[in-house]
Amino acid sequence: MGLGWRHFRRRNNVAQTRATIADIAREVGVSVPTVSKVLNGRLDVAPGTRSRVEEALARHSYRKPVAGPTNGSGPRLLDLVFHQADNLWAQEIITGVERVCGEQRVGVVLSELGGSHRPPQEWIDDVMARRPLGVLLVLSSLDETHRHQLSSRSIPFVVLDTQGEPPAGVPTVGSNNWNGGLAATRHLVGLGHRRIAVISGPDDVLCSRARVDGYRSAHDEAQLPRDPALVRWGAFDAESGYRFGRELLSLPDRPTAIFAGSDYQALGVMRAARELGLRIPEDVSVVGYDNLPITQWLNPALTTINQPLREMASLATRMLLTLSAGGPAPTTQVELGTELVVRASTAPPPPTPTPGAV
Amino acid sequence: MGLGWRHFRRRNNVAQTRATIADIAREVGVSVPTVSKVLNGRLDVAPGTRSRVEEALARHSYRKPVAGPTNGSGPRLLDLVFHQADNLWAQEIITGVERVCGEQRVGVVLSELGGSHRPPQEWIDDVMARRPLGVLLVLSSLDETHRHQLSSRSIPFVVLDTQGEPPAGVPTVGSNNWNGGLAATRHLVGLGHRRIAVISGPDDVLCSRARVDGYRSAHDEAQLPRDPALVRWGAFDAESGYRFGRELLSLPDRPTAIFAGSDYQALGVMRAARELGLRIPEDVSVVGYDNLPITQWLNPALTTINQPLREMASLATRMLLTLSAGGPAPTTQVELGTELVVRASTAPPPPTPTPGAV
Repeated sequence: MGLGWRHFRRRNNVAQTRATIADIAREVGVSVPTVSKVLNGRLDVAPGTRSRVEEALARHSYRKPVAGPTNGSGPRLLDLVFHQADNLWAQEIITGVERVCGEQRVGVVLSELGGSHRPPQEWIDDVMARRPLGVLLVLSSLDETHRHQLSSRSIPFVVLDTQGEPPAGVPTVGSNNWNGGLAATRHLVGLGHRRIAVISGPDDVLCSRARVDGYRSAHDEAQLPRDPALVRWGAFDAESGYRFGRELLSLPDRPTAIFAGSDYQALGVMRAARELGLRIPEDVSVVGYDNLPITQWLNPALTTINQPLREMASLATRMLLTLSAGGPAPTTQVELGTELVVRASTAPPPPTPTPGAV
Repeated sequence: MGLGWRHFRRRNNVAQTRATIADIAREVGVSVPTVSKVLNGRLDVAPGTRSRVEEALARHSYRKPVAGPTNGSGPRLLDLVFHQADNLWAQEIITGVERVCGEQRVGVVLSELGGSHRPPQEWIDDVMARRPLGVLLVLSSLDETHRHQLSSRSIPFVVLDTQGEPPAGVPTVGSNNWNGGLAATRHLVGLGHRRIAVISGPDDVLCSRARVDGYRSAHDEAQLPRDPALVRWGAFDAESGYRFGRELLSLPDRPTAIFAGSDYQALGVMRAARELGLRIPEDVSVVGYDNLPITQWLNPALTTINQPLREMASLATRMLLTLSAGGPAPTTQVELGTELVVRASTAPPPPTPTPGAV
């Protein structure tokens, strides 16, 4: 075995200043093939030995030389990782990745972390055994150990739609969430709404916070007072939209418009309004976020913010394939534009104020 | 390299009656490693040689010995192939496959055929190079050459929701489409509908035909006349539902209920009804098919036929993993049950007959 290792030796006939596999092996007191096995994600190495090798690799910031394009005898794979994949949002991203990988004949390996934002060690082990051209993390991130494990195998990674502050040097692709929040709220303000609620994603997720900040800015520029009671943070699913929608629309001075953090949340808000006997858009306006293809079919068709998910995914995939071919590091942080799509779920607020309104 | 080949030789020290790689090589007039390369999906073999080797493999019904579970040093992968994957129906299947593969630490490689029901040769080449544990084909099938190419590499395959008559011996997992059509139509007949339209998928896809036959049987058992003008065949998407919905609901003696072949088609029918000023369910009842999670959030919530897509996908995945481990061939054709889910889009027909009705 040890294709990586043979390749490594070949490359190392050229001058090198960094630690070699032989240096690592000597330092840890194991054989060169053992280090090679650890690098290649093989599981037939004792756990203790494995962790000592990993530590030495980390200490030396070891990086396996990149295999040239002619060298790849294994299958060409790309790992795509979701914190949660059972929704249309994930589907759009899969389609964008598939579009590029299909052309390039790269197999897309899909993983789902069951709602967690960080992959477990077993997943990293499996990735190292698969040796993909790269890893695309969607709304999830890696801790430092895992980042180092991938770098030491020269497996590049790109983060799509970052959940937290990305570490320096990690390439990311996102969209302009602040602008999305601004555009949605400006639209509602322009229609005459004065009490506008926002339902966002979790408050420890960067994109949620950026959208709410855009919502606040639209209030500030229109010199509208902001009511903290109209801001809700939660999951991006329809259930959360429904729950917060019921709460908000049951307030004595209920909002006349709700800006939801996702199209799924908007679906929940719309059901909550129906159940409370409120018509959309006559009694309450609803704006979604994402512009999933299904939103044009809803009743009423949903006004929403277009987030170019397919394009974001295609771009991130191209970045990964460039990095894996040893190409120049692309710009590390790319953000694509968002824009308002006006459909039938928004209108001016009802002429008469609601009973409890001031 | 050549792990498969070495393994093969080891196994062939045991008595064998079938052609060996050496026999094939001798017959074609190439070296043993060349045959091995072709078997392993390597591309560094001249096309002419390759096709002569393939022909000899097919002639002898050659089958590469199955690698035992202790032998797998490569990544454990499963290939999942869709004719089209950019919708929630595909998402449900991905979730079902992922559920089993996640547990078993098998990577799922996703491919989309861009609407075609048969994979191209490049895809087969890539699969042979990846050497997955198995291939799961969704609403698509393989021609005889491709089937033979996979069998000769001992890569098992299972077809999910068959598009056409599956060849003898190919394991399939589906659901009871005939019963789904029967249950949907019985429900409408029971509510008092007498003019019921059906929109199905393409008429060369088995599941579409089975559903329409169920619809016909429900008419026959209720001794209701069947009007061929109320039966439409088309794609499973929302656009088709919209187009056929407009046509059907514009007829002088329009139907009072429409049974759609998919939840997406039902979305299109519902939009068509709205545009024509018809209320659902007061003026027209709509039944969908699939019971996608989003249907409970629609306005009105959709009455539909539950097709257990996740369970079907999980079952097909388990069948594949059993086959790949050299386990006994499972029952070749499995069909899971379908059932009616009544929500808010169906009701008795309007009391007064429509103007043009007899």
